[in-house]
Amino acid sequence: MTPSPAFQPSETDNLPSGTRSAEIICVGTELLLGDILNGNAQFLAKELATLGIAHYYQTVVGDNPARIQQAVSTAAERFAKPSGTEAQLLLFTGGLGPTPDDLTIETLADLFGAPMIEHPDLLADIEAKFTARGRAMPPSNRKQALLPEGAMVLPNPQGTAPGIIWSPRPGLTLMTFPGVPREMQAMWKETAVPYLRAQGWVTTTIVSRMLRFWGISESALAEQVAAYLSQGNPTVAPYASKGEAKLRISARANSTAAALAKIEPVEAGIRALVGADCYGADDDTLASVVGKLLLARHQTVAVAESCTGGGLGQLLTDIAGSSAYFHGGVIAYDNQVKVNLLKVDAAVLEDQGAVSAIVAEQMALGAKALLQTDWALSITGIAGPDGGSETKPVGLVYIGLATPEGNVLTYKHEFSGYRGRDWVRQLSALSALDALRRNLL
Amino acid sequence: MTPSPAFQPSETDNLPSGTRSAEIICVGTELLLGDILNGNAQFLAKELATLGIAHYYQTVVGDNPARIQQAVSTAAERFAKPSGTEAQLLLFTGGLGPTPDDLTIETLADLFGAPMIEHPDLLADIEAKFTARGRAMPPSNRKQALLPEGAMVLPNPQGTAPGIIWSPRPGLTLMTFPGVPREMQAMWKETAVPYLRAQGWVTTTIVSRMLRFWGISESALAEQVAAYLSQGNPTVAPYASKGEAKLRISARANSTAAALAKIEPVEAGIRALVGADCYGADDDTLASVVGKLLLARHQTVAVAESCTGGGLGQLLTDIAGSSAYFHGGVIAYDNQVKVNLLKVDAAVLEDQGAVSAIVAEQMALGAKALLQTDWALSITGIAGPDGGSETKPVGLVYIGLATPEGNVLTYKHEFSGYRGRDWVRQLSALSALDALRRNLL
Repeated sequence: MTPSPAFQPSETDNLPSGTRSAEIICVGTELLLGDILNGNAQFLAKELATLGIAHYYQTVVGDNPARIQQAVSTAAERFAKPSGTEAQLLLFTGGLGPTPDDLTIETLADLFGAPMIEHPDLLADIEAKFTARGRAMPPSNRKQALLPEGAMVLPNPQGTAPGIIWSPRPGLTLMTFPGVPREMQAMWKETAVPYLRAQGWVTTTIVSRMLRFWGISESALAEQVAAYLSQGNPTVAPYASKGEAKLRISARANSTAAALAKIEPVEAGIRALVGADCYGADDDTLASVVGKLLLARHQTVAVAESCTGGGLGQLLTDIAGSSAYFHGGVIAYDNQVKVNLLKVDAAVLEDQGAVSAIVAEQMALGAKALLQTDWALSITGIAGPDGGSETKPVGLVYIGLATPEGNVLTYKHEFSGYRGRDWVRQLSALSALDALRRNLL
Repeated sequence: MTPSPAFQPSETDNLPSGTRSAEIICVGTELLLGDILNGNAQFLAKELATLGIAHYYQTVVGDNPARIQQAVSTAAERFAKPSGTEAQLLLFTGGLGPTPDDLTIETLADLFGAPMIEHPDLLADIEAKFTARGRAMPPSNRKQALLPEGAMVLPNPQGTAPGIIWSPRPGLTLMTFPGVPREMQAMWKETAVPYLRAQGWVTTTIVSRMLRFWGISESALAEQVAAYLSQGNPTVAPYASKGEAKLRISARANSTAAALAKIEPVEAGIRALVGADCYGADDDTLASVVGKLLLARHQTVAVAESCTGGGLGQLLTDIAGSSAYFHGGVIAYDNQVKVNLLKVDAAVLEDQGAVSAIVAEQMALGAKALLQTDWALSITGIAGPDGGSETKPVGLVYIGLATPEGNVLTYKHEFSGYRGRDWVRQLSALSALDALRRNLL
């Protein structure tokens, strides 16, 4: 065993730092039990990023006063430390309901030593909401009209539980939202964001652009664009998911236009460096990019699928309007279908096996002839978990591409069979789209 | 807020207290930016609940050494306080990749003052994984073979990034997982859970069984089984997702066998009450259930797909071994393909339109004849967002089923078009499988 070189901590969480920052504290035992996904944290995180409000921590706690207070204290201590932060915003979701388990607001009042005050106007509003539904207000809802002294109401137009906006001490602002996503989002947009703008929280904007790559690994991409990864604003960070590599370019500026202007030359530089492995950005998919290229050329495509069983056709038709260029195809799962419909030579099939370059060729040509398209893509491979051999392991896939000129190209892939059947099938379909994309460029 | 059915509320956060507790710390700037949902936290939270391991906090931080260390220190301080906790488990996700942004393990080593040691066996394993893909290992991946002195390897069978199991001081155990959900989940199940059992972390067991239903709404199901919803151990709770209703039966006991014995009579009672709407349990899918029924009958099926574009074939071939009963099919996206390959009558197509019961019938019969199978399923519908009209709105779908006896059945569905194209396509394919399932019963 060899000792490593000394650890070099670099200040890179890829987020521009600021003198004001926010934290998100989600309250709810159902989150600790994994009963629900924390979509509220994602929503607020995305909103904060868009508004340019720095945000370094999220915490989840249960409906338990001691632990809620500990989470708030921890966050407040971070602010108290000489971190250059001049103001702090704590956003709470959950725990505003009428049951004894809903404790967020009284817990905050207790922590900061403020008495709870009943607001008659709030009580009237809550009662009116019940009346409008033809019901009497249950006594337990009365507590939703209690707010800490000094707190402002954060109105909830869609539900009974109001939130608060409260500065219990200088520099610290608390906002509480219910856990119901629809109510929380409406309160955020209608009241919280205008309040934050008015208070000077929103001075800059972060705009991000996600570049998407196929045919290159995350690490190879990171090495290729290494010079960009160490720069400041915009920052460039690599990601990987489901076989594709991504680069996120994030710029901070006073306006969206100014941020985009910072992103543009970096994107152009990266695209020039990486070339055709960059297939698009943001919401682009290989299928949408292929669709645009086919539309521009007024050309059509068909598919012949064996191991993907329809997955390539499904990807192509994920795109609304794909009927303009996608005619359809044959799912030739059984070899007899390859012979009968796609006119694959039975002797070749016998001799070379279904998973071979020549069968991929014949499948593509057969689909092009049968569906009368300009292009046709074929896929034949071993998705596993069974059916592999030493010479033809699980993950071996051949892709065929019949071209408008009457040629046929084949591509051999050896995907990681150990990653499972879904992985092999998904990468096969996406690689087929990528083969067509590169030939359309 | 609804307490989890699996626990008898003791403290206000409804979580049993223990002398051992776990925290989840998710590392990833993409979480702070709201780019992704924190599904890893939900997965681990659910697993901890199932194992009966107490869990009171979750934290999210970016890829930033100082802030990762602060999050770990905060968690460790909670443990140090006289809270009755005798052992603490910190679970980390994210930051194990090969790029300079991936910092979790070296940050932990730095915090606890351990040198990083290169493991030649790990390095050989990572290199072998690249070789298996026919590629050379990029130099940056070398750092994935570096672990803190004293840490054990938490093997990653599905990816290159290994995790660690490490006790840097008595009573504190750290486990790191990659952010890729599939890899994380496999590592958790294959290594982390057995380790925790061996170390005495798991004393009682909660076993859950998820019954799955198609063709009945969550609320109708809840009414039908109302008597079961109020019982204690096992508890029964309704869920809904992606068009299907589910009932989770959870039993707590000293052993898996004892828990299963509690579940069995409840499951039998519910199945007797609900009948054929219950299609399976746990990992069953409509496609796997249909596959088993076809296998038992030695029968085969083919598909003819319009609006689903291959999605039905993909669902059928998600199942390993489906080649025993699935021959293939025709993706007839373009009307000309319906006429030429499936022998749909051009005049009928003109007169009734592609989205009609008669076209669904003819597509199913055409596929059965062409693919020479016992059964054939067809789908034709309006997936949207465009293409709807007053008489044929987005979400209108016809399913055809040609039977071994030479009959053909059709089913008309009106799915919620406002839920989007993916929803309509997915429900169409699943409803087609369900039609076949009911006819196979």
